Amino acid sequence: MTFNTRLGTIQRKSRSLLCIGLDPDTRKLPAPVRRSRNPLYEFNAAIIEATHDLVCAYKPNLAFYEAHGIRGWEALRSTLACIPRNVLTIGDAKRGDIGNTATLYAKALFRDMGFDACTVNPYMGEDSLAPFIADPRKGAFVVALTSNGGAKDFQYLRARGKPLYEHVVRRALRWNTRGNCGLVVGATHPQELKQVRAIAPGLPILIPGIGAQGGDLRAAVRFGCARDGTLAIINVSRSVLYASAGRDFARAARSAALALNKEIDRLREVL
Amino acid sequence: MTFNTRLGTIQRKSRSLLCIGLDPDTRKLPAPVRRSRNPLYEFNAAIIEATHDLVCAYKPNLAFYEAHGIRGWEALRSTLACIPRNVLTIGDAKRGDIGNTATLYAKALFRDMGFDACTVNPYMGEDSLAPFIADPRKGAFVVALTSNGGAKDFQYLRARGKPLYEHVVRRALRWNTRGNCGLVVGATHPQELKQVRAIAPGLPILIPGIGAQGGDLRAAVRFGCARDGTLAIINVSRSVLYASAGRDFARAARSAALALNKEIDRLREVL
Repeated sequence: MTFNTRLGTIQRKSRSLLCIGLDPDTRKLPAPVRRSRNPLYEFNAAIIEATHDLVCAYKPNLAFYEAHGIRGWEALRSTLACIPRNVLTIGDAKRGDIGNTATLYAKALFRDMGFDACTVNPYMGEDSLAPFIADPRKGAFVVALTSNGGAKDFQYLRARGKPLYEHVVRRALRWNTRGNCGLVVGATHPQELKQVRAIAPGLPILIPGIGAQGGDLRAAVRFGCARDGTLAIINVSRSVLYASAGRDFARAARSAALALNKEIDRLREVL
Repeated sequence: MTFNTRLGTIQRKSRSLLCIGLDPDTRKLPAPVRRSRNPLYEFNAAIIEATHDLVCAYKPNLAFYEAHGIRGWEALRSTLACIPRNVLTIGDAKRGDIGNTATLYAKALFRDMGFDACTVNPYMGEDSLAPFIADPRKGAFVVALTSNGGAKDFQYLRARGKPLYEHVVRRALRWNTRGNCGLVVGATHPQELKQVRAIAPGLPILIPGIGAQGGDLRAAVRFGCARDGTLAIINVSRSVLYASAGRDFARAARSAALALNKEIDRLREVL
């Protein structure tokens, strides 16, 4: 089964478009967790236990682990080990490098760490992405339009009458010969998201930027979903992870995820 | 002292523009090293001991370590520990992510691993680069025009009459307010390198693509150097690392580096 088909299947079975960004910020962890022997892992494991039936995917951003050196990588490995197989794992690494180097990054993310998918940066072009889409079962989300302010610096530059991000989207469509290419489009750009969905009706779109970054959940669902109501992956991180700073953080995370799913369901009904 | 000033000083003192890419490919390591307990480190340490007086910098590409998991990160750490302080270390990571995440990547590369500089991907714009140029003593080489075939996919797209990579170069000039911004331009594009040097006369340019990738050393030196004959960093990897596959690999690497320096000196004389 290709990655994109598997994503659709998992979203239908779990009845969820929700992805939780496992980006544990040590300064924000609840005090009892912060004092534990392995704070990143203890925190993630509790979040996963409390939410795994409510999500289609978890997305650890590798920076949050790399910043802790070898202990961070160990925490990432044990975190991945406790995610059930019927939930997808997306390594948010935004890698991009020349061919032989990209092959090593793909090996690290897919084979060694065992991610189901990852994010990739398109700037270096097709051969820098090829190793990430070589195996149809593993997915690559090409960063097209990001939720940060700097998105305007290059992504909106117009070439041949189209903004750069649209060139990226159209390339990703061509790269999707194995059914495992997706896109990243920030929820802070609802009109552009609508336009991207029109250009690429069958590609998964990973949508960060809801919550702390100010993105619009309604637009993300309304414009991000494919016709059958799947293939949008709504990523939230801080608003779920830090729903409570107390001992009840995992229960609070579950409540926040439940509320999001309810709201997403309501928005999907009126699609 | 800013990173860019320090680079010039080190290049003048060492009389070298050479940077060795420490990208150990386990399949290519000499058999005795491959059988050792810690092949990546043993190999790098021998290369460094044999060449540190001939180079201005070493550039480990992080993919070659990440691909080995925790053992790889440990090998990188011990490799960095045996590089003398008067030789610069450039972490080739091509990172790029939204602000709070980029801050963590910068911390990992500069504080934890202790690199003097790193490479960064410009696609996500200014706020994704800001954490890498916050400390004037640490340098960031912005990927502008790469040596791979995929460079043509987006980097040459023309917007407002200029190719995308030129937009990146002009932005990097503006980001260089602290004297620590540089560029990456592949040696496979000599005319573009000449043009980039004309636009950015005072920025360091890291030039990969010599040797195995077919780049032209003459053009790299002639077009890459600033007026005073510094600020071009000529990166070579495979042609030095694997100059011999036998027990004499370190001595052969030294000979290859010496020959490159001699050729670079000859080319600099006729600048």
